[in-house]
Amino acid sequence: MSTETTTTPVHDEQRLQAQRERALIDRVIASWAGTSDERLAQILTALTEHLHAFVREVRLTESEWTKGIDFLRAVGDITDDNRQEFILLSDVFGVSMQTVTVANQANGDATESTVFGPFFVDDSPQIEHGGDLSAGASGQPCWIEGTVTDTNGAPVPGARIEIWEADDDGFYDVQYDDDRTAARGHLFADEDGRYRLWGLTPTPYPIPHDGPVGALLAACGRSPMRPAHLHFMVTADGKRTLITHIFVRGGEFTDSDAVFGVKESLIADFAEQTPGTPAPDGRDLTGRNWSRVHFDIVLADDTH
Amino acid sequence: MSTETTTTPVHDEQRLQAQRERALIDRVIASWAGTSDERLAQILTALTEHLHAFVREVRLTESEWTKGIDFLRAVGDITDDNRQEFILLSDVFGVSMQTVTVANQANGDATESTVFGPFFVDDSPQIEHGGDLSAGASGQPCWIEGTVTDTNGAPVPGARIEIWEADDDGFYDVQYDDDRTAARGHLFADEDGRYRLWGLTPTPYPIPHDGPVGALLAACGRSPMRPAHLHFMVTADGKRTLITHIFVRGGEFTDSDAVFGVKESLIADFAEQTPGTPAPDGRDLTGRNWSRVHFDIVLADDTH
Repeated sequence: MSTETTTTPVHDEQRLQAQRERALIDRVIASWAGTSDERLAQILTALTEHLHAFVREVRLTESEWTKGIDFLRAVGDITDDNRQEFILLSDVFGVSMQTVTVANQANGDATESTVFGPFFVDDSPQIEHGGDLSAGASGQPCWIEGTVTDTNGAPVPGARIEIWEADDDGFYDVQYDDDRTAARGHLFADEDGRYRLWGLTPTPYPIPHDGPVGALLAACGRSPMRPAHLHFMVTADGKRTLITHIFVRGGEFTDSDAVFGVKESLIADFAEQTPGTPAPDGRDLTGRNWSRVHFDIVLADDTH
Repeated sequence: MSTETTTTPVHDEQRLQAQRERALIDRVIASWAGTSDERLAQILTALTEHLHAFVREVRLTESEWTKGIDFLRAVGDITDDNRQEFILLSDVFGVSMQTVTVANQANGDATESTVFGPFFVDDSPQIEHGGDLSAGASGQPCWIEGTVTDTNGAPVPGARIEIWEADDDGFYDVQYDDDRTAARGHLFADEDGRYRLWGLTPTPYPIPHDGPVGALLAACGRSPMRPAHLHFMVTADGKRTLITHIFVRGGEFTDSDAVFGVKESLIADFAEQTPGTPAPDGRDLTGRNWSRVHFDIVLADDTH
């Protein structure tokens, strides 16, 4: 009586091939075993598993690998202090936003976060309450006000509120060659947790798309446009740092943000004001349209 | 009678969180739908799934994401025409070798491949049969000879055999600042498919470890050393290009190659010769040790 077998030479070869590929992964993972930082070891092990799973699943060819290496080199080549193409790359894959989403889990009823973006700059100028952060940047004036509270509704006096935005040509100050500082600044919440200042009504703009990330988007028929938004970073002692935007309700591209940053709770009413409407602080805006937005910020306790 | 429920608020929150994370992945994948190149769409979709799976599995924090971005920027900063840190990064994660392993599946009985490495240079000098590629690079002379055949054993006259290696200080020519060309060259198989030349007995050396990849290895207690090897790239009309090494049997680090490139079939006998042993071509090696190695190369048909 012959023994039945369910394998064929083709199946054997496939099994051997799978074993060779798995054995390589196991060797790489074993190589991380000497990592003294346990968290780093966990991250490197998981990254190894997922990178290899990707290569195996798509049966990546050597010429495709070369293209990938060349692409990463191009991303590195265009990156400098004013151009962070690796952040853009992470952004257009939604990886930045997934990191924010994972972190947000522990955030309870606090204001939601979104992506940091590549245009934050340290040491922005301090703005007085009622001051103007535009510093000559082009655009329509926008009165921005609100409160900073904790998750129990108590004000957070002294919270540092950092705001940065593009001008209405779609560029941040650091995208110009002249070392200007404009459309960015910070102020501190007053004793009642309130803040108020002039900025610019935000307008949609493309992420920088003259580099490798832009070429990728073009190859994929994807728009580089982001919906209009203001960036906020809010910090206070004992509170979790909040990095977020507010978006313009009804604005273009809120359904197709190139970096997947839009959350419903972050869409705010930017109320258009006709010329002649008196400004909240009596500023003379004769003949100009302006807008106003109210954004209340709720900070989670820092549990770390 | 009350209805039993198997969910709790904690479970509900976990389910909602998982839904949020999954919904983001689906949005990113949908964004690649306009890619006209189907293979590119497949690669980007799979890469999106695996990158997000990594972020979700380890619950990557925002500060860890920032460290990752900074690391990639450092890899880009050190990379130039003579230093390819992205290849090193791919190498130490075994990703380069997995790509080779996947490609090797279709390779049948041909000589096995291994990693390309970052030190190949176009336009190497041509070497005559019996010539010397060392061009002044330091090290012990090594007679290298063998044949190039197809998988039926027929010679492949005219096959282009490119060889490159480190000197016995562990450096390739491109790692010196003086634009030297040494220890690299190419020759063409003769009418019988044979080749023969002088090179250097290879010695172990570290991959460049003064950059971010070296810092990573150090943090993980990993050695940057590679076992002694000669690089080969062999090309011929109608044949699949072979990129491989030969390793020294019994040499140090064959079990712990920093880039996971060793395969049993690529380990060769480098026979040590005592001073006074006559050289195959009558070269005067008075008083010097030398070695010899025989490496027969089998090229697969190019099926593309």
